[in-house]
Amino acid sequence: MLKTISSASFWQPVLAAAAGVAFGVLLEKSRRRRTTASSSSDVVRSGIDVVVDKEQLEELVASCLRSAGTPPEKAKLVARVLVAADCRGIPSHGVNRAEMYCGELKAGLIDPTAEPTISSDSKAVANVDGNNGLGAVVSQYAMQLCIQKAKTNGIGLVVCHNSNHFGIAGFWSELALREGLIGFAFTNTSPFLVPTRACSRAGGTNPIACYCPGDGDSFQLDMATTTVPVGKVEVCHRKGQQMPHGWGVDTGGASTTKPKDVLMGGGLTPLGGLEETAGYKGYGLNMMMEILCGVLSGCTKVGPAVPPWRLDRGVAVDYGHCFMCIDPQQLLPSGNFQQSLSAYLRAMRSLPSTASSVLVPGDPEKAQEASSESGVRLNRHVALGLRSLARTLGCAVPGALRDLPEDEVPLCPHV
Amino acid sequence: MLKTISSASFWQPVLAAAAGVAFGVLLEKSRRRRTTASSSSDVVRSGIDVVVDKEQLEELVASCLRSAGTPPEKAKLVARVLVAADCRGIPSHGVNRAEMYCGELKAGLIDPTAEPTISSDSKAVANVDGNNGLGAVVSQYAMQLCIQKAKTNGIGLVVCHNSNHFGIAGFWSELALREGLIGFAFTNTSPFLVPTRACSRAGGTNPIACYCPGDGDSFQLDMATTTVPVGKVEVCHRKGQQMPHGWGVDTGGASTTKPKDVLMGGGLTPLGGLEETAGYKGYGLNMMMEILCGVLSGCTKVGPAVPPWRLDRGVAVDYGHCFMCIDPQQLLPSGNFQQSLSAYLRAMRSLPSTASSVLVPGDPEKAQEASSESGVRLNRHVALGLRSLARTLGCAVPGALRDLPEDEVPLCPHV
Repeated sequence: MLKTISSASFWQPVLAAAAGVAFGVLLEKSRRRRTTASSSSDVVRSGIDVVVDKEQLEELVASCLRSAGTPPEKAKLVARVLVAADCRGIPSHGVNRAEMYCGELKAGLIDPTAEPTISSDSKAVANVDGNNGLGAVVSQYAMQLCIQKAKTNGIGLVVCHNSNHFGIAGFWSELALREGLIGFAFTNTSPFLVPTRACSRAGGTNPIACYCPGDGDSFQLDMATTTVPVGKVEVCHRKGQQMPHGWGVDTGGASTTKPKDVLMGGGLTPLGGLEETAGYKGYGLNMMMEILCGVLSGCTKVGPAVPPWRLDRGVAVDYGHCFMCIDPQQLLPSGNFQQSLSAYLRAMRSLPSTASSVLVPGDPEKAQEASSESGVRLNRHVALGLRSLARTLGCAVPGALRDLPEDEVPLCPHV
Repeated sequence: MLKTISSASFWQPVLAAAAGVAFGVLLEKSRRRRTTASSSSDVVRSGIDVVVDKEQLEELVASCLRSAGTPPEKAKLVARVLVAADCRGIPSHGVNRAEMYCGELKAGLIDPTAEPTISSDSKAVANVDGNNGLGAVVSQYAMQLCIQKAKTNGIGLVVCHNSNHFGIAGFWSELALREGLIGFAFTNTSPFLVPTRACSRAGGTNPIACYCPGDGDSFQLDMATTTVPVGKVEVCHRKGQQMPHGWGVDTGGASTTKPKDVLMGGGLTPLGGLEETAGYKGYGLNMMMEILCGVLSGCTKVGPAVPPWRLDRGVAVDYGHCFMCIDPQQLLPSGNFQQSLSAYLRAMRSLPSTASSVLVPGDPEKAQEASSESGVRLNRHVALGLRSLARTLGCAVPGALRDLPEDEVPLCPHV
């Protein structure tokens, strides 16, 4: 056969194939370069929203929690924390979690009436037993104690054990910010992270929040120590989109771009992604959070032993938190920290930029928060899910949700 | 022309090209997947080493520092800090920095006799003025003060301004670890990080160290908040190797695999790499370190305004540090933290693994440290550079360095 092929007809496909290989490599390289222009948030942002009045939304969530057995004041606090997340553009920790909270309450997994108690108290530090109460109730108590300690001693640290999901970490840092303090809030959560070189989940998204007061400005960092939160993977899954490399791994611990691989047995990568791009650092930070929240507070289960955040878990989830406040006035003359911080934030925002301007942590959330004054934007499926929950619990539904079509069902409320 | 081409001869190259494109895409994908097997440290590890006795090496570095005007006790401390880095397998912060330190001393950029003083002191916090003394001298003073405060109050925080390069952050956390405390050490450094969406350097490698005491075990995290330190890029450059995507950017802020682009005007990415893989989180952590070290301590220059770490800078570098200690015994019954931490570390190490076993922060460094007992391994070019420095300063050179060939010159001492 080979002899019958002329030189030209032999080389034509070979050269074409070679050119194709080169083109393919360039295509893939260019895809990687191109996708780097958008943030991980842009990838999952959804277009169809429902706008609900903020107070009505808080009352709706609070009424659901009351129907599930929560005393009014506690229900109001939890509702404020959830709605605050939607206002800040963090819908993964917003009112979409009301269904899970109500489910936990009705299943008897959380004690809605529990008050936190102090299990050890030293000058600048304390350990709080959450008594399996609502995470927001435990956190408000602990952060207020921490603020007092910082005002007295320059720094305060309060850890909590036997608690539950506390919403967005930044909500608690903000309590310190309002007092002119630097506020940190950390928590452990149920396993979704696959550590470097491992092939099973063994840590939560374990966030770090740090808020610092400027002079009419502020630094507001609130980030999971995984590359992305679970919610972003869920949205890609629902939309049938692939994820960028570095977000998650499959059951074998190998990098995957398929959301399903991550959700069904695989897991999230630590910040930094795979090993060659220093994912072991995000894994180290994730462990640091687990130690400060779970180990230091005396949680009975830490790391891979933390129960899944599911209604069929059968036991208290026993989350731990850690709050820390620093009073800058006890280190620098009054106002100096705030002024210097503002100057630093301005310097960073005015750096020469590639395309859009350089931001500092909190800038996107603050812009979103300002636009929420006129109404909170909810993903349509979250809104449908909330209406469905309210009706199940016999709660009154505000107009914006009543007006949604009756024949539409929530596809995936956990966005 | 088209009419004369038969159907087969038309489709053959087209199909071949199409197959080629697909193969090219797979090839590039597979290259990315393949390179993920090795850590960023493996990429830059060098093969040719010189082994030097630890005490002789410390004395050699100390004698160089003494010749450059440092009092004996201070020279001894700085030498211990630098050699500790080589022992732990962090040569980027080891004795290769002796030349820079001596250069700064001889140029009058550091005051080798300066003693730190307290500029503000509250119950659990203090602010230390380094008086432009040696970074190690300032840090030892500050960490000892911080340890006292933690023992008295449960937590202590000491920030420093007007200081200099303090070596590896972990050295200072270890002082707390030896006292049974959780120890944190942070510092700002000269700009090498290019923030997300920026195209100029505006932050240092700003490391985070956190050491926690276990029961005959420990957690030892010590990491830059950039994806990799400068040293790893320098080694790739010297070896003519490309770097993986995500380590650095060029002068235009675009991802690059060429070390030269990073060293000549570009810079390092924050942990997380590019924006789509959440590099803005590493950038946020980097800013958090700058705030705690530079802004909170009252450094006159922060972030992009920090002078470069070069001999021609003409001014004091004015680095800031932040040390924090927590006494776990004031939160949990004595020994409980240590035992729970050890159990957690064991659980993580025994997770099902992809290839080699799962490690926890500090494991590789502890193994390296144990092997350094019989002698410290130095890169050959670092050893040659140190010999050259010692001779310039008229210091005695130990046998292991004397035995190196006389006609060999150090190619790049700053590894």
